Amino acid sequence: MRVEILCTGDEILTGKTINTNYSHIARRLVEVGLGVHWGTTVGDDRGSLLQAFRQAGERADAVIVNGGLGPTVDDLSQEVAAEACGVPLVLSDYWMKRMEESYARRGRVMPPNNRKQAMLPQDAEFIDNPIGTACGFAVTIGKARFFFTPGVPREMRRMVDEQVIPRLLALSGITGVTRLKRFHSFGIGESRADGMLSDIPAFQDGSIKLGFQAHYPELETKLAVRGDSEAALAAVLAPVEAEVRRRLGNFVIAEDDQTLEGVVLGALLAKGLSVATVETASGGHLAARLAPQPGAEKVFRKSVVARNPAELGIAGANDDAARTAATALRAETGASHALALLVEMDDGPERPDMGGTVCIGIADADGAVTRPARLVGNRDWVRAGAVEMALDCLRRHLLGLPVDERIDFERR
Amino acid sequence: MRVEILCTGDEILTGKTINTNYSHIARRLVEVGLGVHWGTTVGDDRGSLLQAFRQAGERADAVIVNGGLGPTVDDLSQEVAAEACGVPLVLSDYWMKRMEESYARRGRVMPPNNRKQAMLPQDAEFIDNPIGTACGFAVTIGKARFFFTPGVPREMRRMVDEQVIPRLLALSGITGVTRLKRFHSFGIGESRADGMLSDIPAFQDGSIKLGFQAHYPELETKLAVRGDSEAALAAVLAPVEAEVRRRLGNFVIAEDDQTLEGVVLGALLAKGLSVATVETASGGHLAARLAPQPGAEKVFRKSVVARNPAELGIAGANDDAARTAATALRAETGASHALALLVEMDDGPERPDMGGTVCIGIADADGAVTRPARLVGNRDWVRAGAVEMALDCLRRHLLGLPVDERIDFERR
Repeated sequence: MRVEILCTGDEILTGKTINTNYSHIARRLVEVGLGVHWGTTVGDDRGSLLQAFRQAGERADAVIVNGGLGPTVDDLSQEVAAEACGVPLVLSDYWMKRMEESYARRGRVMPPNNRKQAMLPQDAEFIDNPIGTACGFAVTIGKARFFFTPGVPREMRRMVDEQVIPRLLALSGITGVTRLKRFHSFGIGESRADGMLSDIPAFQDGSIKLGFQAHYPELETKLAVRGDSEAALAAVLAPVEAEVRRRLGNFVIAEDDQTLEGVVLGALLAKGLSVATVETASGGHLAARLAPQPGAEKVFRKSVVARNPAELGIAGANDDAARTAATALRAETGASHALALLVEMDDGPERPDMGGTVCIGIADADGAVTRPARLVGNRDWVRAGAVEMALDCLRRHLLGLPVDERIDFERR
Repeated sequence: MRVEILCTGDEILTGKTINTNYSHIARRLVEVGLGVHWGTTVGDDRGSLLQAFRQAGERADAVIVNGGLGPTVDDLSQEVAAEACGVPLVLSDYWMKRMEESYARRGRVMPPNNRKQAMLPQDAEFIDNPIGTACGFAVTIGKARFFFTPGVPREMRRMVDEQVIPRLLALSGITGVTRLKRFHSFGIGESRADGMLSDIPAFQDGSIKLGFQAHYPELETKLAVRGDSEAALAAVLAPVEAEVRRRLGNFVIAEDDQTLEGVVLGALLAKGLSVATVETASGGHLAARLAPQPGAEKVFRKSVVARNPAELGIAGANDDAARTAATALRAETGASHALALLVEMDDGPERPDMGGTVCIGIADADGAVTRPARLVGNRDWVRAGAVEMALDCLRRHLLGLPVDERIDFERR
């Protein structure tokens, strides 16, 4: 089945807003096995919209349209869809009532221009929006089924997952339920991860689709699976999930919606521990990962950020300095764990092998451990890698895993 | 003139990579007065590319194609362009020599598959890429002139500015030179800024195009102007630039490529001053703006990040606490200026009027000044606004401007 995405709106067309809705919809289509074949962007312009609907209706089997369902005059999607179908717009009493109730619940009266959002092409299929006033709908233009979704990201995301994708799967003859299992790792590059996992039989025979997405310094490994039922799906997924977890091993920092900082804070909270951090050259980025998290007020004691190690009475980024900095901070703050991240960036103009020397120190009641590393890349790259490595070292230390396992981003 | 953007590549089509190249090209087209009328995204697929070239060739006068000029087999732009034009690909001896020389300068031998990058459609117009191996070219397909650019962002950006836009302006009959003047402000919303500026005659008569781009908490005000010569352009722009600067007044935090943190560091460096910071609830985000900047090693002394004000021996986010925290930090670090940012986020589940109470303190040799504020929004919104406000207060203090001018994002 050939699926297209059609995004509308002057803000998107003119580049004022970066089109993250497009990439979200496209990724979801790929994840459920539908794929995406064409993307179109047009502005809030009647002529362009009509032409785009007609051209997509000739090329595609299904089209997801995003945007243009708002209450203002430049929101044209319903109107132009009706024109392309050759039908009038008809007021949906049901949606008017839903909108009025929603305003009433918040003690407000619905503005008159919201009525426009309840005008749908005659005989359109209604697509529910449980969290907004822009309702979706589906119509057929040319040979394609068109699904209309609002531009507000959280409304679009929920409607695509709950309303549009099930209809697309039904249209395509793909039946059953889908699930996406995600592993987040630090320290393995995409090609190495692919080499470590691709010979698993379920990936070879296509019963589970393996995919990767690199967001340096993290790598996301995705397992997309479809089954006739939740039980059948779980039966296929469970052993493969366990095998992936085993093979990626200590490099798995989090799963699904977890984050590395969340896992670290969770481990500290669970054991009634606390933490303080000190960093040089990473300029507060380490503290900025931990301190704002929910629950951090119970765990996070204090952070010290120095641009120059001399401010801390130490020199360089080596084992001695990291041990000294962590131990001193632990004594000063009374935290159960102190984490020191020392970074010395290379001097001079940027060149290909440029990078930074890193040393991480962790002090606890048993003493201090250190982890030196040499990271290559520009300053932002080294800083991001060093902060991730510091958090990962603390995670490993708290979970009793080795802190000095070699990672793909370091040179030794 | 009708201009379209056509982006190619599976990574973009499938949403794996967010299409920031599209928004960059579109913004540049709008800024020089050309506008953009249609966007298309297709994958590395011969059939889709050919169809997309032909359809755009029927709709547009000019098309910027991005991507597909690399050395690998899935890079198809030259090949499909030649097919669409009905001409063979021909080796450019000039580009082969340029690539070989570029490899030789780095002491390397050019891999054989780079030869593909010198194969251009017969009679194509050569478009120089001064910083990469993917050369650009222009051909005519249907009624449109197509400009091919590489997907590597820094190469694309330079080629669009230096090579493509001048050609598009010539095609469109627009002559002369263009300039974009940018003001960055903090504390004024887009609609108020529009109200403050839109009656300036040059904006009314269209001789200068006024535009805004909000990146909360900052607002970018853009003046796009075109003239027959640099001198003519400067003559038009200079008085309007001065008038905009006067009207936006103390809210202008930076201009053009400057940043707020850069302006603050510059003011400190120029006067031989130094700074230390202390923050609660903003979790290191204040330090993360200042400490990593070039030149910060001469100015930035130390930062303390506490989740809980009690860690600093203070309570709440009020004038007394801010004064105490700033004065103590100045004494401890010996910095000429100490900046304290205290934030108390509202408790409980998120609700529309939720926000945070903020107090900023600045201590210097003359004593301490404070700036209380109430910011509304979710935690991320309040944190971003509070960090910006702290940096802006320090900027204002260093430049002798009032630190307590009311901003649009606060409630009093």
